[in-house]
Amino acid sequence: MSDKKIQPRIMPGFMELLPTEQIMFNKLKDTIREVYESYGFLPLDTPVLELSDVLLAKAGGETEKQIYRFTKGDTDMAMRFDLTVPLARYVAQHAGELTFPFKRYQISKVYRGERPQKGRFREFYQCDIDIIGNDELPLIYDAEIPSVIYSIFKKLDFGKFTIRLNNRKVLNGFFESLGLGDSITDILRTIDKIDKMGAEKVLDELNEMGIDAEKSEKILSFIGAGGSPDEKITYLRLLGVDNETFCTGVDELEHTVENMRLFGIDDSYFTIDLSIARGLDYYTGTVYETVLDDYKNLGSVCSGGRYDDLTGYYTKQKMPGIGISIGLTRLFSQLKAAELIVPESNSTAKVLVAPLGIELQYPLEIAETLRAEGIPTEVYYQDKAMKHKMKYANKMAIPYVAIIGEDEEKNGTVTVKNMFTGEQKTVKAKKIAEVIRD
Amino acid sequence: MSDKKIQPRIMPGFMELLPTEQIMFNKLKDTIREVYESYGFLPLDTPVLELSDVLLAKAGGETEKQIYRFTKGDTDMAMRFDLTVPLARYVAQHAGELTFPFKRYQISKVYRGERPQKGRFREFYQCDIDIIGNDELPLIYDAEIPSVIYSIFKKLDFGKFTIRLNNRKVLNGFFESLGLGDSITDILRTIDKIDKMGAEKVLDELNEMGIDAEKSEKILSFIGAGGSPDEKITYLRLLGVDNETFCTGVDELEHTVENMRLFGIDDSYFTIDLSIARGLDYYTGTVYETVLDDYKNLGSVCSGGRYDDLTGYYTKQKMPGIGISIGLTRLFSQLKAAELIVPESNSTAKVLVAPLGIELQYPLEIAETLRAEGIPTEVYYQDKAMKHKMKYANKMAIPYVAIIGEDEEKNGTVTVKNMFTGEQKTVKAKKIAEVIRD
Repeated sequence: MSDKKIQPRIMPGFMELLPTEQIMFNKLKDTIREVYESYGFLPLDTPVLELSDVLLAKAGGETEKQIYRFTKGDTDMAMRFDLTVPLARYVAQHAGELTFPFKRYQISKVYRGERPQKGRFREFYQCDIDIIGNDELPLIYDAEIPSVIYSIFKKLDFGKFTIRLNNRKVLNGFFESLGLGDSITDILRTIDKIDKMGAEKVLDELNEMGIDAEKSEKILSFIGAGGSPDEKITYLRLLGVDNETFCTGVDELEHTVENMRLFGIDDSYFTIDLSIARGLDYYTGTVYETVLDDYKNLGSVCSGGRYDDLTGYYTKQKMPGIGISIGLTRLFSQLKAAELIVPESNSTAKVLVAPLGIELQYPLEIAETLRAEGIPTEVYYQDKAMKHKMKYANKMAIPYVAIIGEDEEKNGTVTVKNMFTGEQKTVKAKKIAEVIRD
Repeated sequence: MSDKKIQPRIMPGFMELLPTEQIMFNKLKDTIREVYESYGFLPLDTPVLELSDVLLAKAGGETEKQIYRFTKGDTDMAMRFDLTVPLARYVAQHAGELTFPFKRYQISKVYRGERPQKGRFREFYQCDIDIIGNDELPLIYDAEIPSVIYSIFKKLDFGKFTIRLNNRKVLNGFFESLGLGDSITDILRTIDKIDKMGAEKVLDELNEMGIDAEKSEKILSFIGAGGSPDEKITYLRLLGVDNETFCTGVDELEHTVENMRLFGIDDSYFTIDLSIARGLDYYTGTVYETVLDDYKNLGSVCSGGRYDDLTGYYTKQKMPGIGISIGLTRLFSQLKAAELIVPESNSTAKVLVAPLGIELQYPLEIAETLRAEGIPTEVYYQDKAMKHKMKYANKMAIPYVAIIGEDEEKNGTVTVKNMFTGEQKTVKAKKIAEVIRD
């Protein structure tokens, strides 16, 4: 082995956690997966590397610049930059083998070679669900999706949150009615920045785009409309916009709000926000954002919407869908910074078995008993003083120590110490799992 | 959208599953994770992309050729080809923040740009555990590792299996005593192929290496020695090899066998196999392989061993360790081909809620009740005839259908149909979770 050492380090923009933090991260990831599965979403696990022509069928601009793309042999390949394009490819490729509506989740890492900056990651987890229809997809799913969001953020327990709803048809129809149908994408992109830039600057930008003051005022008063979901529906109806797309959008919005209530989503957890456009130009109906009420500065922690045509680049079959994504890596790093996530334990183990001057046979039997009962258990093998074993349990924040000495061995018992309360009691070996579960 | 369609496809050597198969794959993955955690191993999740100089510190030859390596901007980077090098880098980088012995698991994808051939994957899961000591690591861990293997393959339930043990010191010492200390690596590599090539060809190869017939015979009779673990220990002691390394190795082997019995590993599940070398030249003590007795042709399904110096390329601190790896992607594809894995369900859902001509409110409440009880539940929203709903449940192999019509709504009941037995009964809504769990 050479004496010259290579400095152990990772690249900027890649998140790597200490075990304590990783345990917390996995807990969030497991909760999200559990809720996704509780609604019957099916797991997918597509390759990280795909052929560039397949992956970049739809891309352009920023995506092309940011992608990790390279050639090996004759093959031009790239690392996926999201989970939506691989889903489109998968559904087009396997349409004949799937049952529709196809509900899938995927929780995987994606890659973007961005310039490193605070809060931006080059490798990060996306936790996606999508529901894909063959030709059509009933409107009820526009309410099932927020029901999933509701369950997740209730379980994650980061305090009060709000699901913000909008509908692209409402936006599109409204702009068409102003004769601004051709500039919708630009206008929406500008409006999308209102939270960051303020109304003043948005007006300036709209003016630069050649939109007169009257129309601009109409646009801003439209997107800034306040009130409850029902009041906003009424407001939209009273606007008297004579445009079919607009009217369809208002109907969809109204039904979705009604359906969300059927799903048991409390009114205080959602709102209609006409300023939401979700930049991406493939959304065609309902769009969502989710904010944590006490941490609005984190921005949207779960976004998505409905699209008419997922697979257009790969197949003629029309496949509409609806989906959302949680950017877990970013969310985790933000929540950690905000101290909303506090590591609880340094260990996966719930019990540390600490033999005290006896052979290992009996302590190992106890450890096996605990594991068989589903209680993760570590054994302290080193022949050290009890205070070292207690110190280790403290350092790892393992909640229970099972002290096993000569008496315990002779009597078939275990002395269980609760490391938080300091309480200690000696129980029969077969009772130990019970004691720890209580 | 252009009319020219791109053919949806993935690269050869990448495994992508249909949902039914993915559910089975995840079940295996979850079981392995669960057992790893039950022994107190801590989770790690290192980046897929690392700096080439860090990742290739130790590499050379085949590894360099197979790696996916590329440059973006000024940065020379590569995709990890195993989980051991990233572990070494991680431990060297974070030594001050970790508690030793450091027990970690990582279940992640790794990448090798091999020429595609049957049974070889370019992207595959490795499920690794390692225990890393600071300066030293007690011998008891050499028995804890097989105890983990034992628990996993008992749980996975692929029939009888055998953990094959050896010790590199025994091998090294034996060869040194024959004056072949310099050719150990080559000899071990040749011996490693004995299962594939047969004894005859191994003898030829040894002859070509300039080893005379007498020594070759000794070597082959040594590695082919039969008998129980205790008989083999006796055989080794009686060989009368006067070499310190050899004697240390025999002691380690003997203690490890004794310790494995303390861990409750049944004697019929392990054996000493003096032919196992595990090619890799960094193993220095105990080495393991695991074979499924009814599917020996699959080769070793779980291998590993002890090494003296994990982090030598990154730090002067001496860090010995011991670990194993399960190549899950290959194992899964082999077990599927051998029909040892048979998909059970096309769905993550256990219940399909089927509303029958009523509003969704009550059926959605039932679905929420089930989910709150931890029972994954899908709702069939489409307003179709009951036979369509039953057909869907059958196709997805969802075990229960909750039929909810006017009567059920009125009486606050649910009619539960067991799709396997055909049995059907009407129960009070609050009893439904109970009925399904039974």
